[in-house]
Amino acid sequence: MNKNHPKTIIGVMGGGDTNDESYRIAYELGQKIAKSGWLLLNGGRNCGVMEASARGAKENGGLTIGILPDSHTGQTSQWIDIPILTGIGIARNAINILSSHVIVACPGGAGTLSEIAMALKSNRKVIALGWPSKNSLDIFFKCGQLYFVSTVEETIEQIKLILETNS
Amino acid sequence: MNKNHPKTIIGVMGGGDTNDESYRIAYELGQKIAKSGWLLLNGGRNCGVMEASARGAKENGGLTIGILPDSHTGQTSQWIDIPILTGIGIARNAINILSSHVIVACPGGAGTLSEIAMALKSNRKVIALGWPSKNSLDIFFKCGQLYFVSTVEETIEQIKLILETNS
Amino acid sequence: MNKNHPKTIIGVMGGGDTNDESYRIAYELGQKIAKSGWLLLNGGRNCGVMEASARGAKENGGLTIGILPDSHTGQTSQWIDIPILTGIGIARNAINILSSHVIVACPGGAGTLSEIAMALKSNRKVIALGWPSKNSLDIFFKCGQLYFVSTVEETIEQIKLILETNS
Amino acid sequence: MNKNHPKTIIGVMGGGDTNDESYRIAYELGQKIAKSGWLLLNGGRNCGVMEASARGAKENGGLTIGILPDSHTGQTSQWIDIPILTGIGIARNAINILSSHVIVACPGGAGTLSEIAMALKSNRKVIALGWPSKNSLDIFFKCGQLYFVSTVEETIEQIKLILETNS
Repeated sequence: MNKNHPKTIIGVMGGGDTNDESYRIAYELGQKIAKSGWLLLNGGRNCGVMEASARGAKENGGLTIGILPDSHTGQTSQWIDIPILTGIGIARNAINILSSHVIVACPGGAGTLSEIAMALKSNRKVIALGWPSKNSLDIFFKCGQLYFVSTVEETIEQIKLILETNS
Repeated sequence: MNKNHPKTIIGVMGGGDTNDESYRIAYELGQKIAKSGWLLLNGGRNCGVMEASARGAKENGGLTIGILPDSHTGQTSQWIDIPILTGIGIARNAINILSSHVIVACPGGAGTLSEIAMALKSNRKVIALGWPSKNSLDIFFKCGQLYFVSTVEETIEQIKLILETNS
Repeated sequence: MNKNHPKTIIGVMGGGDTNDESYRIAYELGQKIAKSGWLLLNGGRNCGVMEASARGAKENGGLTIGILPDSHTGQTSQWIDIPILTGIGIARNAINILSSHVIVACPGGAGTLSEIAMALKSNRKVIALGWPSKNSLDIFFKCGQLYFVSTVEETIEQIKLILETNS
Repeated sequence: MNKNHPKTIIGVMGGGDTNDESYRIAYELGQKIAKSGWLLLNGGRNCGVMEASARGAKENGGLTIGILPDSHTGQTSQWIDIPILTGIGIARNAINILSSHVIVACPGGAGTLSEIAMALKSNRKVIALGWPSKNSLDIFFKCGQLYFVSTVEETIEQIKLILETNS
């Protein structure tokens, strides 16, 4: 039986800048996504949470998909296996969301907030990992299913719960 | 001299649902945008802030542009002069933002929040009109230039200040 | 009665390069579209058929819409009234097509051919104006309603026939 | 050394309808792409050349990527491992092209012609496989690098030549 079963895709969003701590968390998230047998999808660029999470997945046997705003690979992370060159700029944020079964949002700026919002708009479940406070995301909680967690372990547990509920 | 001068485009974002009060405010905003000689751009659908603001502009001599997610006109507001049928779904939110000189965000849900975020990401100035509290938008204030106002008059004054500064 | 009636939008496609003759034809096409009371929509850039047709419309009292691939106005034609900054690169060709009631395709290269193809795919009627030979477009004739004409006058007549049939 | 090397992606375009012969060719193309160690990318739908080529790859150990126009999986081929749900309708044709290192165009209608045109516009090399005659594609040959072949074997040889030249 070769019949296919589409793979589970976990979208990782987050800022283009990271400090040591946020890099470490994004790396560990990528690592644990890979070890759970899921594909990692992110924005594909060679910086911040995108770079760190893709590296974490790749160095631990995972497969990584990058949905790039660009029409060329000049700013693509070297840890991305499958660069999808959309050429559609920030409109590609919508594709990140629609293509992911569950979205993990690490701290970030306006781009990340737009992805949280689009995910909730599209009825995707979002896990907010490592944000300074739950209050700061208050405006999003009323828009859909947003989970607030502090550790990568909790994130993985929450993803598993969501996938079980969906299946 | 027929040389052209592109028109000033004011983007109006906001929820697909309105109550009497929010409909009245969006209508009045459209009206005052038209009377100021600006074009009104919104998401083009026949509901909520989109319908109300387009109607306010049209009934007062304005010109209205709708950037629709759809590839057909089935859900287009009758108050839209120029329906741009993108066919790209929620990714069209990015076009709303990029095509507007200034963005006014009336209260709304996840779609509106994604537009505020994308606007700040794209260095557009955003005026939040009629939101319940300034605090609720706290997370966006650190991302760029977001102004909080309570009335349509203040909105129009703020737009004029921004246009003078930009020109 | 303020009730709105959306305006008729004629899409003009064609190459980014023009010679004297093709510039003149595109200019005259824009002129006659404006004089017929229709809006002109094109790709919005400051070159070729886009520049010439927008200028022809603007210098004759028309209103011009440019659907730009860019997220900024650096390459926008000065003859465009309403620049829609999509930021989605060549994917914007689909929006040109979907937003036009009728498409006129002047001679052009691969970009223009992609627009003829997308128009036929989307059940839009296409008028090919001024192409060297009808044979050269053979492969497109079997895909949908494509009309081959030699003059701007014939083009305007054909647009009128199509609009009457559609209404 | 875990450092990543992005995978080679071969885009397969072609019609949504197939007969026995064109299904067989698309299947065999997918099979040989998989056996060559390349990823197969197509439009992801459950019909025509998309279905046949994805099946050919999957039943022979390959990995398949589908760039869907949809925002849901209702029409996704079961032979697609990685469905990228763009939600951007036919504008997604641009992403098919930009994300592929080499494009193979099997016979198809207007959608396929738009992809050939966009590929040449974006300086991608295109191999036309199994079209009734070379003449029928004449208008595209002047737009860029288009190769005309009759068999899957020739296609694979041509892909190898292109990849060697590019690297």
